[in-house]
Amino acid sequence: MEQEIALLRETELFRDLSGEQIGKILKISRKVTFPEGEVIMREGEEGDTMYIILEGTVEVVKSLVMGDPDEEANEKNKVFTRLDASDHAVFGEIALLEMMRRTATIKTVTKCRFYEIKKESFLSLTEADHELGYRIFLNLARIVSARLRKADEDTIKLTTALSIILRES
Amino acid sequence: MEQEIALLRETELFRDLSGEQIGKILKISRKVTFPEGEVIMREGEEGDTMYIILEGTVEVVKSLVMGDPDEEANEKNKVFTRLDASDHAVFGEIALLEMMRRTATIKTVTKCRFYEIKKESFLSLTEADHELGYRIFLNLARIVSARLRKADEDTIKLTTALSIILRES
Repeated sequence: MEQEIALLRETELFRDLSGEQIGKILKISRKVTFPEGEVIMREGEEGDTMYIILEGTVEVVKSLVMGDPDEEANEKNKVFTRLDASDHAVFGEIALLEMMRRTATIKTVTKCRFYEIKKESFLSLTEADHELGYRIFLNLARIVSARLRKADEDTIKLTTALSIILRES
Repeated sequence: MEQEIALLRETELFRDLSGEQIGKILKISRKVTFPEGEVIMREGEEGDTMYIILEGTVEVVKSLVMGDPDEEANEKNKVFTRLDASDHAVFGEIALLEMMRRTATIKTVTKCRFYEIKKESFLSLTEADHELGYRIFLNLARIVSARLRKADEDTIKLTTALSIILRES
C-alpha cells in the first residue's frame, strides 16, 4: 500500500496530493493485467478510462499522417515510444475531461499491470471532494497545457518547413 | 453588476459558477481601458495576467513560421482573428497555470475595456475556495484540451501535406 501511494504520487496527475487523498484515488482504482501484445486503447476510438502503469512496458503509437490508423503497411508514418513503470506514465487522462477520441494507440510489449480508473467514478469522487478535484484538475490543466505548447511548436516547425519547400519548388 | 455577472458566466472559463462565485471573481478583477492600436500582450513574452473583453474589438495575431514575431514585413506568415465582447473572449488564461510565453499577440482595434485578473490573486482565491478552484480548473483543463485536439489535427494535416509534397518532388 505504501509503495502504491508513493507510485501514484510520482505521477504528474496526482502530484501534491496527501496520503489520504491518494487513498481515495486507490479506492476507485481497479488493478488490471494485460498479456503481451494486447492493445489497451486504439487511436481514433472513444474512451472513458485512464490507466496508470504499475508493471511492464508499453508502446505508444501515434499516426503522423491522415489515413487508416490500423494500416500496418504505413509504419513509417507513425511515431513509436516505449514506456514502463519507471516513467510514472498515465494514459488516457484526457478521457477524464470529455468524451474524446484517443490520440494514440497503446499496446503492451510485455505482460503489464495497470491501475484502471473510470471517468464516472473519478468525477463522482471529485464532485464529493472539491479540494481533491481542485488539485487534480490543476495538475491536469498543466499537463495538457504543456502538451499544447509542444504541439504549437511542432505546428510552427512544420509550417516553416512547408514554406521553405514551397518557396524552393 | 447583474450584467457583469451574466457576461462572465458566458465565458467558457467561468461556466457553471454560481452568482456568489462570480462575485468572488469580480472582487479580484480590475477594469482596465486601452486606447485603439495598443498591444495588450505580445507573442513570445512572459505574462502573469489574463483579460476578459468587456467592450471593443481586438485582433489576435499568431505566427505560423519561425522568426522574429515583431517583423512587420512577414505579415503573410501570420494568422489574424478579430474578436469582440459578443465572443465572450478570454485572453492569456494559460498564464493562470504556469509562467509561460504568450502564444499570440493581442492588439486593440478600437478603444477597449477589459477585466484584468492577475495569476497571484487568482491562485490565492482558488486556494481559499477549493470548490471554486475545482470548477474553474475543470473548465480550463477542458478549454486547453480542446485546443490541444485542434493542434494535433493541424499537425497531422501539415505532416500529410509535407509527405505528399516530398513524395512528388
